[in-house]
Amino acid sequence: MSRKCIIGQSGGPTVVINATLAGVIQGALKADYEKIYGMINGIDGLLDEKMVDLSSFKDQKNLFKLIHTPAMYLGSCRYKIFEKDQSIKQRIITILNKYEITDFFYIGGNDSMDTIEKLSTYAKICNCPINFIGIPKTIDNDLMNIDYTPGYPSACHYVATSLCEIAFDSVIYPIKSVTIVEIMGRDAGWLTASAQLVNEVYPDSIDLIYMPENIFDENDFLEQIKDKLKKKDHCIIAVSEGIRDQYGMCVSLDSGIQKDAFGHLSNNGCSNYLKKLIGDHLGCKVRAIQLSTLQRCAAHLASYIDIENALRIGSYAINCALDKRTGIMVTISKNRNEFLLSHVDIHKVANHVKPFPLEWIDEKNKKIKKEYIDYVVPLIYKSGQIELPQYLQLNER
Amino acid sequence: MSRKCIIGQSGGPTVVINATLAGVIQGALKADYEKIYGMINGIDGLLDEKMVDLSSFKDQKNLFKLIHTPAMYLGSCRYKIFEKDQSIKQRIITILNKYEITDFFYIGGNDSMDTIEKLSTYAKICNCPINFIGIPKTIDNDLMNIDYTPGYPSACHYVATSLCEIAFDSVIYPIKSVTIVEIMGRDAGWLTASAQLVNEVYPDSIDLIYMPENIFDENDFLEQIKDKLKKKDHCIIAVSEGIRDQYGMCVSLDSGIQKDAFGHLSNNGCSNYLKKLIGDHLGCKVRAIQLSTLQRCAAHLASYIDIENALRIGSYAINCALDKRTGIMVTISKNRNEFLLSHVDIHKVANHVKPFPLEWIDEKNKKIKKEYIDYVVPLIYKSGQIELPQYLQLNER
Repeated sequence: MSRKCIIGQSGGPTVVINATLAGVIQGALKADYEKIYGMINGIDGLLDEKMVDLSSFKDQKNLFKLIHTPAMYLGSCRYKIFEKDQSIKQRIITILNKYEITDFFYIGGNDSMDTIEKLSTYAKICNCPINFIGIPKTIDNDLMNIDYTPGYPSACHYVATSLCEIAFDSVIYPIKSVTIVEIMGRDAGWLTASAQLVNEVYPDSIDLIYMPENIFDENDFLEQIKDKLKKKDHCIIAVSEGIRDQYGMCVSLDSGIQKDAFGHLSNNGCSNYLKKLIGDHLGCKVRAIQLSTLQRCAAHLASYIDIENALRIGSYAINCALDKRTGIMVTISKNRNEFLLSHVDIHKVANHVKPFPLEWIDEKNKKIKKEYIDYVVPLIYKSGQIELPQYLQLNER
Repeated sequence: MSRKCIIGQSGGPTVVINATLAGVIQGALKADYEKIYGMINGIDGLLDEKMVDLSSFKDQKNLFKLIHTPAMYLGSCRYKIFEKDQSIKQRIITILNKYEITDFFYIGGNDSMDTIEKLSTYAKICNCPINFIGIPKTIDNDLMNIDYTPGYPSACHYVATSLCEIAFDSVIYPIKSVTIVEIMGRDAGWLTASAQLVNEVYPDSIDLIYMPENIFDENDFLEQIKDKLKKKDHCIIAVSEGIRDQYGMCVSLDSGIQKDAFGHLSNNGCSNYLKKLIGDHLGCKVRAIQLSTLQRCAAHLASYIDIENALRIGSYAINCALDKRTGIMVTISKNRNEFLLSHVDIHKVANHVKPFPLEWIDEKNKKIKKEYIDYVVPLIYKSGQIELPQYLQLNER
């Protein structure tokens, strides 16, 4: 039987999500798929039949460009399929049948895996033979049953490199100052933890690391800073956007916190709140830096291991479809120096969140332990060594 | 007579200010200087005799590291010498005489050249034979009588690369949205102008460019955005931090604008003000991104031409000292494919500001003209071509 597939991208971008798209296209071309469609803006666009033909990627030059293009070539959406809304599921299946789609691929994070779960379950109920396959990506690194999510290593590389440069910039004036760098991560501190990479090369350059895994206490926070500023002039803090107080409330200037379609909190920057807090209580110079969208789209600092695996994971998804797998997510695991591809039942992934291991956090010193470094370095650096630039520090200052 | 020199760094950092320091050290080592001192934290540290011996840089390995180190190896200060305060000038000369300094080098921007002017003038009056030589650096590119200031090309490279990635990130959702990117520049839009580099490779990806050279009008600003959003979903705006209204007031959320020692205004972000303005009047999604300190310290995106010239300009300053020049600033000018070094009377530089040429601004379309591109490209790209990454765009979106 001739095969026709459709590929979508969903959620927030990463630097390697287009490499995964390229991997699926490459795999489909190799397996002689009759048609390779792309959804424009994920499910959102599919419902309006906004699709493109991706066969033009037979031209290898464009495929290479696609691999290295940041953000999302096909555009994204944050479309939530509600459990009880059968009509939407039916409409999607009807559209897919109209185009004789045999395989449906969705590249995304937790919310996209929720979509794969809903559609594959519905398809089974109504005996529809379309394969629904999830392909992971997220800079948050919070998907279950996978060693790491493509996109995360590149984001870590950006965060560590930028923090290193910010640390060098922060110490130039001989005055007491605090620099707060706010890093993405609503529920888990995976990305913020990469700040510790800087300390491995330049010891004690990042003074305090705060993540959502631990309760944020304002008084303790101020005491920690006071303590640091007794010993040195400059205190540099890496903090997850999603830190919460003992009542589970986000630490933010914005009292009117909004929720998106998936019910996730969206706040307007804990760093600005913390800046005001420090200014009010300690009276020293404070700078708040948000790495903003750059941490998820800085293609010029992509991890090559990340790109390679993202590409492989895309091709592997085609193998899964040819094996008639449905209701699965493709996975990746590290075994010695190899990354192995496999797949897992989508129910074991969707709507679960993998927290950062508490035992990897040195909560007393607000640092991250060596176990994390051993975990993350092989995802970013081929040499197995942290390759932050070799800068020179004037120790006497 | 044996020579002893002292070198200081002052003002805000650039990615190549340490390359210039390395150039002075290299030149001094070659000319067999008996002593090479570094001031810790500029004039501020010199007054407390906080100095380091830089002879250790005979080790080439450390010199190479120094060339590529961001921020300021010796630390900085923002110390203003007041015209009438003879006692400070006298104290500085006394300290320099104590260490038998023959040549004083100060690497910095406009404020540092003010320091060189004050000290060289005072030295002449009291027949002190020390040579006072200014060496330019500033990402602001606003020094007079020089073709460009070292540090500026690298900052442009960072701004253009980051804006390009932000532009790709901004268009992924099919909703009306505005992205404001705030770029450094209190008085001149030199750095913000580099946003136009993105448009040269990806036409119309940066929609509007606002600089301090033109009066900022809120109503016109909102109309421009409305107009853009009629034609496309996403509007991306590059804006200088220093834009001002018709009364010369900074556009900022912060009503309590403060001044630094040199009387410069310091505001807390026009992008947050503009975000609120757009949110209140147009009601679409708005994101405000401040490139913050990264635009002046992102060594990983340095321009190699910038590094090379910064190094050369440092060595050349030593030649000027050997020729017994004082009260000068070293300059650089572009002649066909060559960069020529020379020097200029410090009075022609200090406390003047080179504005961005009004004739290079397409004020009607809020864009920058080709004349600027022809000026800036040879400072950044050796090939003479803009080397932004070759990404792939889905034109149908």
